[in-house]
Amino acid sequence: MIRRIRLVIEYDGTNYVGWQVQPNGVSVQYEIERALQKITGTDTRISASGRTDSGVHALAQVAHFDTEARISGDKFAFALNAHLPPDIRILNSADVDADFHSRFSVIRKHYRYLIRLAEHNSAFTRNNALHIHAALDLDKMMDSASLFLGKHDFQAFKSSGTKVKDTVRTIIASQWKKDGEYLIYDVCGTGFMYNMVRIMVGTMLDIGRGTIPSENIVSALITGDRSYAGATAPAHGLYLARVEYEDGFDTAHVTSGGWYE
Amino acid sequence: MIRRIRLVIEYDGTNYVGWQVQPNGVSVQYEIERALQKITGTDTRISASGRTDSGVHALAQVAHFDTEARISGDKFAFALNAHLPPDIRILNSADVDADFHSRFSVIRKHYRYLIRLAEHNSAFTRNNALHIHAALDLDKMMDSASLFLGKHDFQAFKSSGTKVKDTVRTIIASQWKKDGEYLIYDVCGTGFMYNMVRIMVGTMLDIGRGTIPSENIVSALITGDRSYAGATAPAHGLYLARVEYEDGFDTAHVTSGGWYE
Repeated sequence: MIRRIRLVIEYDGTNYVGWQVQPNGVSVQYEIERALQKITGTDTRISASGRTDSGVHALAQVAHFDTEARISGDKFAFALNAHLPPDIRILNSADVDADFHSRFSVIRKHYRYLIRLAEHNSAFTRNNALHIHAALDLDKMMDSASLFLGKHDFQAFKSSGTKVKDTVRTIIASQWKKDGEYLIYDVCGTGFMYNMVRIMVGTMLDIGRGTIPSENIVSALITGDRSYAGATAPAHGLYLARVEYEDGFDTAHVTSGGWYE
Repeated sequence: MIRRIRLVIEYDGTNYVGWQVQPNGVSVQYEIERALQKITGTDTRISASGRTDSGVHALAQVAHFDTEARISGDKFAFALNAHLPPDIRILNSADVDADFHSRFSVIRKHYRYLIRLAEHNSAFTRNNALHIHAALDLDKMMDSASLFLGKHDFQAFKSSGTKVKDTVRTIIASQWKKDGEYLIYDVCGTGFMYNMVRIMVGTMLDIGRGTIPSENIVSALITGDRSYAGATAPAHGLYLARVEYEDGFDTAHVTSGGWYE
């Protein structure tokens, strides 16, 4: 009997070319499909909530696959973890209805961007937070974050190579907070384009540094002109943090109390 | 003119044989002495507050060295970091009096032990916290931590190979706290012997698992018999967290707001 299994996956993206299988290196998807082959004996394709870029991390990526293997739903996490490298961990596995789809059933996604704001970088978060020593105007950055709220055309906040027809997205939450020497940006929306969060963060960092005015965000959203936006922030500060589904499933149910809450 | 420089150092001990220069691999001391040679052109020996074992981390190790180099005290941190691997960071450097000694001027040292208490390990803290899935009796562990408080003979809590005449030490603070999926043990004392914290933690973990009774701590402290104590906890959960000096210097002044506060 074919069943559908849902996985919640945490990964440190440092050593991977990203989520998706690529010819130029090892991907997270490749590692999980390889582990799945080992425990089921069958080649199985897994499908995620979306791709993540090379170096981008996940506190809660969601994926699904169909299988005939006789392993109870919650045991896949333990079985897969026994075969996965330690920088990829399955935090939860479960049987789901056949109409659950890790990508098409998403209603909200949350990303997080972590910055270490200190004189010196940290030995521990060196691959997991962007280190900035320069002074940043946090008030300006916090104010500018709210300009993204609502339904906008994010044409100016997509990578030039991205071929997407509909560039309208709705941002539900967008805020910076300070926690000791760390600065955290949390954003929630109905969907995000390739590099969108990294360009939003890069723009707010340029505003914080004073190299572009806050009004540039409004101009970029109105005109769709990429030149109003700032640089693309580096991948290693970015996390896919949480995914919510139309059936009520929310990865926060299984990741609460995790690393860097 | 010869001056004395004090360093506060953070390191991820995963890839090192420990603090001290060893024939069998690369040590943190070796890396810092090598970077110092590069920036000063002179072979300089550095001296730390104490050794840390292979795999043990530091949120705040302290070391000093004497130099004739014409670099202002606070600039050594930046200059050294430019030549050090990213898993070793100098958080602070300063000129100090010639009678400051990183080891002999210590009045209190603080260690921390980090445990991830969850079904699955984390992709992010895999090298920086001990993962435990089994149920632990936290109340018993918290109660047992207080049994170490005060002045005791820690003969039973030292490594068998340790040659120390005076095994009496004073513990000023000893407590467990829970933070989400992490369990943190903080201990402060006037001094610690080789492996002492790891044996204390291992003993409390055996008490938490129910394999030995809490009374074993009292028996071990009274008799000095190592067999009352538990196993030595793994190195990768342990951190040298803070060092306090007789001249009033406290590493907490320069590390507050750091990683995993």
